[in-house]
Amino acid sequence: MHFNISQSAFNQLLQTVSKAVATRTPKQVLTGILLNVEETTLHATAYDLEIGIEDSLDVTPDGTLEIISPGSIVIPARYLTDVVRKLPSTLLTFQVSNPYMADIRSGTAEFHLHGIDAAEFPKLPIFHSAKSLTISSLLLRQFIRSSAYAASTLEARPTLTGIHSTLHMGQMTFTATDGLRLGMFSENIPENPDFSWDAVIPAKSLTELTKLLPEQDMPVTLELSNSHSLFVIGKTHFYTRLIEGAYPDISRIIPNHFGTTVRVDTAQFANAIDRAALIARDKENHMVRMELQDRKITISSNSPEIGNVSESIETIETVGDDLVIAFNSHYVLEALRATGSDQVQVQFNGSNQPFTLHIPEEQNNLQLISPVLMR
Amino acid sequence: MHFNISQSAFNQLLQTVSKAVATRTPKQVLTGILLNVEETTLHATAYDLEIGIEDSLDVTPDGTLEIISPGSIVIPARYLTDVVRKLPSTLLTFQVSNPYMADIRSGTAEFHLHGIDAAEFPKLPIFHSAKSLTISSLLLRQFIRSSAYAASTLEARPTLTGIHSTLHMGQMTFTATDGLRLGMFSENIPENPDFSWDAVIPAKSLTELTKLLPEQDMPVTLELSNSHSLFVIGKTHFYTRLIEGAYPDISRIIPNHFGTTVRVDTAQFANAIDRAALIARDKENHMVRMELQDRKITISSNSPEIGNVSESIETIETVGDDLVIAFNSHYVLEALRATGSDQVQVQFNGSNQPFTLHIPEEQNNLQLISPVLMR
Repeated sequence: MHFNISQSAFNQLLQTVSKAVATRTPKQVLTGILLNVEETTLHATAYDLEIGIEDSLDVTPDGTLEIISPGSIVIPARYLTDVVRKLPSTLLTFQVSNPYMADIRSGTAEFHLHGIDAAEFPKLPIFHSAKSLTISSLLLRQFIRSSAYAASTLEARPTLTGIHSTLHMGQMTFTATDGLRLGMFSENIPENPDFSWDAVIPAKSLTELTKLLPEQDMPVTLELSNSHSLFVIGKTHFYTRLIEGAYPDISRIIPNHFGTTVRVDTAQFANAIDRAALIARDKENHMVRMELQDRKITISSNSPEIGNVSESIETIETVGDDLVIAFNSHYVLEALRATGSDQVQVQFNGSNQPFTLHIPEEQNNLQLISPVLMR
Repeated sequence: MHFNISQSAFNQLLQTVSKAVATRTPKQVLTGILLNVEETTLHATAYDLEIGIEDSLDVTPDGTLEIISPGSIVIPARYLTDVVRKLPSTLLTFQVSNPYMADIRSGTAEFHLHGIDAAEFPKLPIFHSAKSLTISSLLLRQFIRSSAYAASTLEARPTLTGIHSTLHMGQMTFTATDGLRLGMFSENIPENPDFSWDAVIPAKSLTELTKLLPEQDMPVTLELSNSHSLFVIGKTHFYTRLIEGAYPDISRIIPNHFGTTVRVDTAQFANAIDRAALIARDKENHMVRMELQDRKITISSNSPEIGNVSESIETIETVGDDLVIAFNSHYVLEALRATGSDQVQVQFNGSNQPFTLHIPEEQNNLQLISPVLMR
């Protein structure tokens, strides 16, 4: 195994896969990066058994990568990534001479790093004749951003740590809920075949995936097997296990009629809640109070030790009953970020029922929050 | 007490003094910021009894600050700074109506924060007919940067947590040492009166002070009493307590002749050590090895578990004996940063004696490091 590679290209490759390196594990091989050199391609893989990332670089005439002989080895990620990152930005030589010892040379610097037999590295999941569909990376990012934040982080109910991802009649939906709030995003994916798809994907995995999605739009291919999902972004392959078990039926949670509908400027609403949250922050549920009266919203919070705050904003439109409600300010701020529009429509059914936030005139992005019951 | 102030000016004032707010103390008043309004000036003060910062703003015709009535109050810093930071960048009104309750208003937002009686706030140290001198802020930054890093962080020997600052025959010197390394910087301050000055100032305080020093050069006035030192930068007053007790005599530690002198490119030398440190990092003293032979330096490091590294650099000039020595790589990297020049002169007396680093042709910036003894 022997290749020459530009430091920046090698560094980039290692940074991409390093997000899947295991950090706390007794299995040493999982803390490594597998390098596999074929005739014209260098593959790098990391796999912590939860997510796996494989990326590759082909030999090109510009000399970014020159392959002298094939082979494979696993090198502890922490050392490999730091060594490559700290080398000068010129060509470097990577060579396995002595078995399980990699030599990295750049200028007069010469590293010898102990490696592990590539045969010990776990195999990535296999996707044989799996279901597959293609969507835009920007749209995929929106799917994840509008749902993942609402997933549970508690392992007590594993299903709720996932995002329920479905495709039905050409409509794709991502849903996540921790039992106190829910984030949902739907969109038609018409160019894809009309098959059904139903999987619970760990929210943590999808949040990691967003870090690999490029700034500019490009197609992403999704594949689904019984146990795993695969996202292909250019040459980068991102694998994640699925969560077993049926996702709860959330259709009954979402109200279909409302007593009060208001439309507000998102920034005004968010800033008022953010400021009120300063006084509420030492309370367990970051509770702030909202009162709607005469088409005006007053956000307030008080603490016997610290003081109190109130702030009013005008609604853009109000339909229905006046209202007093209390909510977790962090939940509402996160839901407003997940909505991502200049104006937001908020719909209530009194003080004790869940309320929803969505983009006005659109139903495909829905955020739902349970209020804090006032005594 | 009542004033109107631009949010950005108030925010700036509070950020400046907040570095001296106590974070862990049973005395609640020390976690606050004292606001004191005189006829034409607003003063803000924080004082954790170790360092104190006072800054002020005068009434100006542009309306940045308008004073309606004088008075003073202490407000918990954590709430005051966050509230002001999160208000919109317009004018805000600050008013103490009800005793010990401050009202902060901006637009429709209205905060009421509980305060503490200003009489409870500790008095800043007083400087009566104290010794005083003026130096450039850029030079002061260099004094601190070249010494503070070498001070001890262990309270076992309190004196060594300070920087020994002396003025003698017009020459100012800052020295710090933790017993294993030493940083020293001297410069003539000719425009100041010929008096002696001798004080041990906590290195932590001076490191905080550097955060208040402006990017552009301006004069800083230093005052010294028996127990405290004061640095005046424009309108900002920075107070620190002094460390009692005599500073050890370090003159005998610094060698005055050397067996080996090399001159190297600082970046080449630092990069080679930085890379070798990757292999050495799990060892307690981050030990790397340096060999000088035939005017060439080889930096190396090895670890039975990880691997090994070696890298050679050419010296620019070598005088004296060949040498093998081992040192703490972090100490040398910090000393090179403290030197801050493109080339550095390193001088040795064999493998077991301290070695020095300084700017070639200059003696006013001296870094000294004890080697790691090789078995």
